[in-house]
Amino acid sequence: MPGELVKALRAVAGSPNVSTALAVREQHGRDESMHRCSPPDAVVWPQDVEQVSKLAGICYSHGVPIIPFSTGTGLEGGVTAVRGGVCFNLTRMDRITALSTEDFTVAVEPGVTRKALNSYLRDTGLWFPVDPGADASLCGMAATSASGTNAVRYGTMRHNVLNLQVVLADGRVLHTAGRGRHFRKSAAGYNLTGLFVGSEGTLGLITQATLRLHGSPEAIVAAVCAFPSVHAAVGCTVQVLQAGIPVARIEFLDDVMMAACNRFSGLSYAVSPTLFLEFHGSPGSVEEQVRQAGEIVQLNGGSDFAWAWELEARNKLWAARHNAWYAALALRPGSKARPVCSPFKQLVCVSSGLIVGHVGDGNFHCILVFDPADLDEIQRVKEFATRLARQALALDGTCTGEHGIGLGKRHLLCEEIGELGLTIMRQIKAILDPKNLMNPGKVL
Amino acid sequence: MPGELVKALRAVAGSPNVSTALAVREQHGRDESMHRCSPPDAVVWPQDVEQVSKLAGICYSHGVPIIPFSTGTGLEGGVTAVRGGVCFNLTRMDRITALSTEDFTVAVEPGVTRKALNSYLRDTGLWFPVDPGADASLCGMAATSASGTNAVRYGTMRHNVLNLQVVLADGRVLHTAGRGRHFRKSAAGYNLTGLFVGSEGTLGLITQATLRLHGSPEAIVAAVCAFPSVHAAVGCTVQVLQAGIPVARIEFLDDVMMAACNRFSGLSYAVSPTLFLEFHGSPGSVEEQVRQAGEIVQLNGGSDFAWAWELEARNKLWAARHNAWYAALALRPGSKARPVCSPFKQLVCVSSGLIVGHVGDGNFHCILVFDPADLDEIQRVKEFATRLARQALALDGTCTGEHGIGLGKRHLLCEEIGELGLTIMRQIKAILDPKNLMNPGKVL
Repeated sequence: MPGELVKALRAVAGSPNVSTALAVREQHGRDESMHRCSPPDAVVWPQDVEQVSKLAGICYSHGVPIIPFSTGTGLEGGVTAVRGGVCFNLTRMDRITALSTEDFTVAVEPGVTRKALNSYLRDTGLWFPVDPGADASLCGMAATSASGTNAVRYGTMRHNVLNLQVVLADGRVLHTAGRGRHFRKSAAGYNLTGLFVGSEGTLGLITQATLRLHGSPEAIVAAVCAFPSVHAAVGCTVQVLQAGIPVARIEFLDDVMMAACNRFSGLSYAVSPTLFLEFHGSPGSVEEQVRQAGEIVQLNGGSDFAWAWELEARNKLWAARHNAWYAALALRPGSKARPVCSPFKQLVCVSSGLIVGHVGDGNFHCILVFDPADLDEIQRVKEFATRLARQALALDGTCTGEHGIGLGKRHLLCEEIGELGLTIMRQIKAILDPKNLMNPGKVL
Repeated sequence: MPGELVKALRAVAGSPNVSTALAVREQHGRDESMHRCSPPDAVVWPQDVEQVSKLAGICYSHGVPIIPFSTGTGLEGGVTAVRGGVCFNLTRMDRITALSTEDFTVAVEPGVTRKALNSYLRDTGLWFPVDPGADASLCGMAATSASGTNAVRYGTMRHNVLNLQVVLADGRVLHTAGRGRHFRKSAAGYNLTGLFVGSEGTLGLITQATLRLHGSPEAIVAAVCAFPSVHAAVGCTVQVLQAGIPVARIEFLDDVMMAACNRFSGLSYAVSPTLFLEFHGSPGSVEEQVRQAGEIVQLNGGSDFAWAWELEARNKLWAARHNAWYAALALRPGSKARPVCSPFKQLVCVSSGLIVGHVGDGNFHCILVFDPADLDEIQRVKEFATRLARQALALDGTCTGEHGIGLGKRHLLCEEIGELGLTIMRQIKAILDPKNLMNPGKVL
């Protein structure tokens, strides 16, 4: 990295906010993906959008890659600096602004995580429901089009991002829906907000996201039930949705996963395909949802329907689901895991594995646990993941229901979208990032 | 129109499916917008996507504009042939395919209207809820990013289109989410589907839309109540949403509109700001929603809460809302109307008018009735509409909550989105339609 460039970065961000050695290693250690981690040449910690804009302009004029970074919780290697460059660590931009309890909107900077936002909202009667598991940055969730367990009721990031402030590679600042706008719907021109949601930092740096909030449910009930077969659990899910029951969460764990969870959390659940459900609403409506869902569970041969109203009891009931990721990792201490996302109907074809499904969305993860030091095993895991994704594609599904393309699934994107779609994506990228500096080597 | 071009079009579509005179007038008569109607030079009626592709290819090589057309129910002049060219009347492509009751998806061609789809679905327990009022083509609704009264619960077209088959200007066929794919969510690459929803035919011809279906509600209750002021009605709406009541429809009519409706439909509603609500769910949940909403209505000084369960009684109760458009037109026989869409908080600023609000979405229409022969009045209506839209923009709103930009609001798009956003939209258009042949003169 040329000294002149470092000097220019320091002149904008201040010396302590530009590092070329120490922080790079820190970043390195936090990448949770299975991808070989290439560190950047430097890390900058901008304090506001003006600094981001100036710093990007400097990188642009030097032809140096720009890699956005906030919580680093992604699993597809999206923050890896495959061609070196400058990592923009945006965690110090953590303001929450423009809360409107009348319009159900709020604006957050990249350092704000979903848990931080929800504690900020605690007394307003509103909340932000998209929950990918990790306490991710909300702007990062917008960048990767995150979803998670609540998506069946509240939608994914695609449905809940209303506007984005984006710094383009050359430093220009774009407001995808117009500066300061925070309407619930619009039909004005092309949907630029939707274009940036899920673009994984390859089109620009998201420096602020305006989000749609929801009324906090008055009552929440969690429920769990075991099934004699995967088929029965899936059938039950379809019928619950067909019945129009406004279930908030409906999650599937297979028998192998349940056994791992029992071991990890000291539980004694039946080692069978299991559904975890959550109902939101008024006390009366929730009660009725539980009753209706319970009847459908029975019809499908499900076990007794255990349910809980209070927060503590709910957490206990859902402990297995909440800890599934760690339970899987604990099967082999020191291991890492790789999730694979596939569509609904494939669930009944996969014989067994560590399966966690957002079945309400027709999406499940097969968790593959491996030793990160065993290159041969990594290769086998990659091959299996690719086979599973191709099976999903053959069933008209997607190779990635969540988590994005990142580094790991680039070879599958063309198979999913086709040559023409990929060509158009590349042309769009070339408009916004003509020098290919924005998070290069990802997605396309 | 050169004879050679007409010959080439006829060779693909067959002579009876290409017209250069008769049908043009037919089309002309059906434009419901206030915009001066420029007829196309020819109309073609393709039978399938292959024909659309070949016909577009011919227009492309001749440098002739392409104007997509189906039901012609749009209100912003989106199907006007401002530069002449060939109108693609897609109404004869009316297949409904790929219904999956397990995945809640279906694919429709441009000739399929929302009512036709819902009667096709009648026995499946599923329905498609987006309802812009008119019995519009579903592909047209995708093209204009339509929404309507149910959007507060079920989202707009942006949330309910999963995939689009699009013929580009040069005849290439794009599947925005990959050929035949119909998953509920994906994080694979840039959201091309979202880019085409709301592009108003300026990026390509939508020849098939894959839609997300919903479970039909077991019970539906309609309700009506009058308020002492606009402010009270709006306050009530906000509180209903904040309470997390999953209301399916919540519509506002002001006193002037109510008087017009009473006169038109022989009703005797109070001439006051009025809310029309609809609740969907199980019988028990609906009952509770009505009770909860009724309490909030009372707190805001609303009148007795009249409600109805049965279809006929519901239709009677909602008659005023359903006929609002025609009631407005009937105020001055022979007149036309122009809707203006604005955000929520503006509602309390507008003193009075013919106001119909999708208040659950923070969006309302002010219906302006005018004599289409009075050019001076048309000018005044246009000026008023622009003033109202600018007021919406000043309040961080949008100049078009629905209906699109079309011809009528092009001068407002830059004010809403900013120079950079508009530049990017133009660059995207140039990628997909380098000769500017797709519905030219609209949106940008």
